[in-house]
Amino acid sequence: MTTSQIASSSLTSIAQQTRQAARRLAVLSAEVKNEAIEAVAQALESATPEILAANAADCEAAVAANIAKPLIARLKLDETKLKAAIAGVRDVGRLPDPIGVVDIHRELDEKLILKRISCPLGVLGVIFEARPDAVMQITSLAIKSGNGVILKGGQEAVRTCQALVRAIHLELGYTEVSPAAVQLLTTREETLAMLKLDEYIDLIIPRGSNSFVRFVQENTRIPVLGHAEGICHIYIDEAADIVKAVNITVDAKTQYAAACNAIETLLVHKSVARDFLPLVAAALQTRHVELRGDEATRKILKISPATEADWATEYTDLILSIKIVDSLEDAIAHIHKYGSKHTEAIVTENSSTAATFLAQVDAAGVYHNCSTRFADGFRYGFGAEVGISTQKMPPRGPVGLEGLVTYKYQVVGDGHVVATYAGKDAKPFTHRDL
Amino acid sequence: MTTSQIASSSLTSIAQQTRQAARRLAVLSAEVKNEAIEAVAQALESATPEILAANAADCEAAVAANIAKPLIARLKLDETKLKAAIAGVRDVGRLPDPIGVVDIHRELDEKLILKRISCPLGVLGVIFEARPDAVMQITSLAIKSGNGVILKGGQEAVRTCQALVRAIHLELGYTEVSPAAVQLLTTREETLAMLKLDEYIDLIIPRGSNSFVRFVQENTRIPVLGHAEGICHIYIDEAADIVKAVNITVDAKTQYAAACNAIETLLVHKSVARDFLPLVAAALQTRHVELRGDEATRKILKISPATEADWATEYTDLILSIKIVDSLEDAIAHIHKYGSKHTEAIVTENSSTAATFLAQVDAAGVYHNCSTRFADGFRYGFGAEVGISTQKMPPRGPVGLEGLVTYKYQVVGDGHVVATYAGKDAKPFTHRDL
Repeated sequence: MTTSQIASSSLTSIAQQTRQAARRLAVLSAEVKNEAIEAVAQALESATPEILAANAADCEAAVAANIAKPLIARLKLDETKLKAAIAGVRDVGRLPDPIGVVDIHRELDEKLILKRISCPLGVLGVIFEARPDAVMQITSLAIKSGNGVILKGGQEAVRTCQALVRAIHLELGYTEVSPAAVQLLTTREETLAMLKLDEYIDLIIPRGSNSFVRFVQENTRIPVLGHAEGICHIYIDEAADIVKAVNITVDAKTQYAAACNAIETLLVHKSVARDFLPLVAAALQTRHVELRGDEATRKILKISPATEADWATEYTDLILSIKIVDSLEDAIAHIHKYGSKHTEAIVTENSSTAATFLAQVDAAGVYHNCSTRFADGFRYGFGAEVGISTQKMPPRGPVGLEGLVTYKYQVVGDGHVVATYAGKDAKPFTHRDL
Repeated sequence: MTTSQIASSSLTSIAQQTRQAARRLAVLSAEVKNEAIEAVAQALESATPEILAANAADCEAAVAANIAKPLIARLKLDETKLKAAIAGVRDVGRLPDPIGVVDIHRELDEKLILKRISCPLGVLGVIFEARPDAVMQITSLAIKSGNGVILKGGQEAVRTCQALVRAIHLELGYTEVSPAAVQLLTTREETLAMLKLDEYIDLIIPRGSNSFVRFVQENTRIPVLGHAEGICHIYIDEAADIVKAVNITVDAKTQYAAACNAIETLLVHKSVARDFLPLVAAALQTRHVELRGDEATRKILKISPATEADWATEYTDLILSIKIVDSLEDAIAHIHKYGSKHTEAIVTENSSTAATFLAQVDAAGVYHNCSTRFADGFRYGFGAEVGISTQKMPPRGPVGLEGLVTYKYQVVGDGHVVATYAGKDAKPFTHRDL
């Protein structure tokens, strides 16, 4: 057998065990699941010295391998960060149980009752960067939602991930949640093999760069929860309040430029361009933002030109392209041509213009007079964020626990058969919501 | 250019027009959409002679081509069938508007309001068999849900489909819904090219055989709403009421054997096998059902053996495989091994056994003491059925209009920026549902 065949065969057996454990986890009560989440928190507390030692070894190896500083910062787990992550685990325990929620309850006929009930997806495959806190967050979300989970973290964090999962397994052994419900993969071959296991894995959540997410989407038949790109815009309307417009633009570009909900392009109505552009340019340049403009913008600002490629680029950096448009329609047409359906904002005091923008723009988030940076599960009040989806089908946008659940239809009768309701003397259904 | 390149380039231009028309349709009020649906109904009434003549030509050609009788029966459109289809169009007009429904309405902070609002998907691509009634049903569902639609019917129905769409276009010209929102493709090359247009088409709905649905799923990046297979079971528990068990089994197998929600395998607890099997066998054999059994079953019934292949086969025919199991756990294990997660039923008078079955079985439908044939959008009271999905992610099971809509998050502020809610002096969110 080749290395990849070995990886694939041992992985299949891991996935089968996870599937079995997930089936038992799926039917546990909220109370029992919350006890297991508390056990995870306590496991992490007791194993703190081992976890920190493993992380120190990972960080040392990363420094020796000359890994970039920001990556090492995310890899590093000190006592404060670990405590915060453990607090996050307990926060998940306190969220409402997403399982067993009845959203349709209907009498189809006398003594024939339909219910639609939320239930776990089954087994999640989560592939994430070299950031150990993800192990704790994802494990608690998986248990809370009744799903098994197969984790694969970035290679640089392998010792830390192993220490974390070892501790979690030890303590889960004393709960009703089987340790087999939480699995850790450690090699790249296993990641690739995992994408083929559509028989055992129900959802893949890839975290990381756009190109990685796209690679995953193109190499699996398993549904993928992920975002492909975030090219977000703000349109400054002719009826914009200029002070709000400057503040919102600065926040949306600079508050965290690497985020997918930061803006890449600013669209400005021609009639406010002369007033607005010098003000916003000064504010952005103070914050070291590089500006690139179309021809009309460059008649007002001394900046480098924006090319066709700029409109289609997610910079994830302190760069902003600027275009002057003739009308709301032009702005919307530009957004539909170049946007990635993530989050799009308008700044205007004209409520009818705002309403047109909110209705017509096709994106997961449509915003009026606020920063695109609000597009986030925690800010929306979802308690925990599983990811942001730029798919058009739900779940769309920031996804909370509801992205980890599905539903089933339960019908309970008393010997009912369809023949009664078919043909010439068909009995009608009552279809009465209960 | 090759034929397929020509198909693809003209199709791209059709899809762009549909996208444009769909954007305008997306923001129309329920009233305006319903007027367009009524116009469609009237168009079909006025064009009845032309439609019936086109259908007569299609049927004549099909007979000459020696097409199978059941297919010609589905192709044939007489005045009664057309009238029923037109009534179906008006029924869709009377359904509640699925667009603009607010399911989250939350204050994030003072004057910063989040709403989650249902909206159309955009453009649907629907590929269906040679049954002309599908054109009318799908067109009305698309308009109701604010979506553009590109239709491709079976080749044998091409004249009828063209006559139907010509009539619909003529009358839509007088409404606010652009005729470009409803398009008809007529060649197989266009169908293949359509699967590549993920930039313009948001959902593909393939109707037809399982192998066709699977072909579509494997050849497109566009989300597919379809079912891959329906291998459904009934488990007759040791505490089953034998009369109910016989009636339910007969209905689930014979009421319409070609349906995906008909059963393929009967699982029988060993302790009721001797009482139940002779009764159910007599009832089924009267209805010309061929029975195949495992070894234990064949000690009770004189029937041919069921092989491993039988457990994994969707017969869509009057054939039923039978297996005797030792316990509820065995029955569930068999269902998880061979079932297609469509619809699974238990017959028992023991409510705790039933509860275990309903909780543990992983399928879109889990049924107690009723026929699997109830798994259907109309029977569930959804008014119209778009299709049945055996995907695990929602929409799952029978899908009504909700399968044709998505949602967007709308956030309205008054100059709000994220910097206010970040860092050391972060202002907390209020997260108050309104």
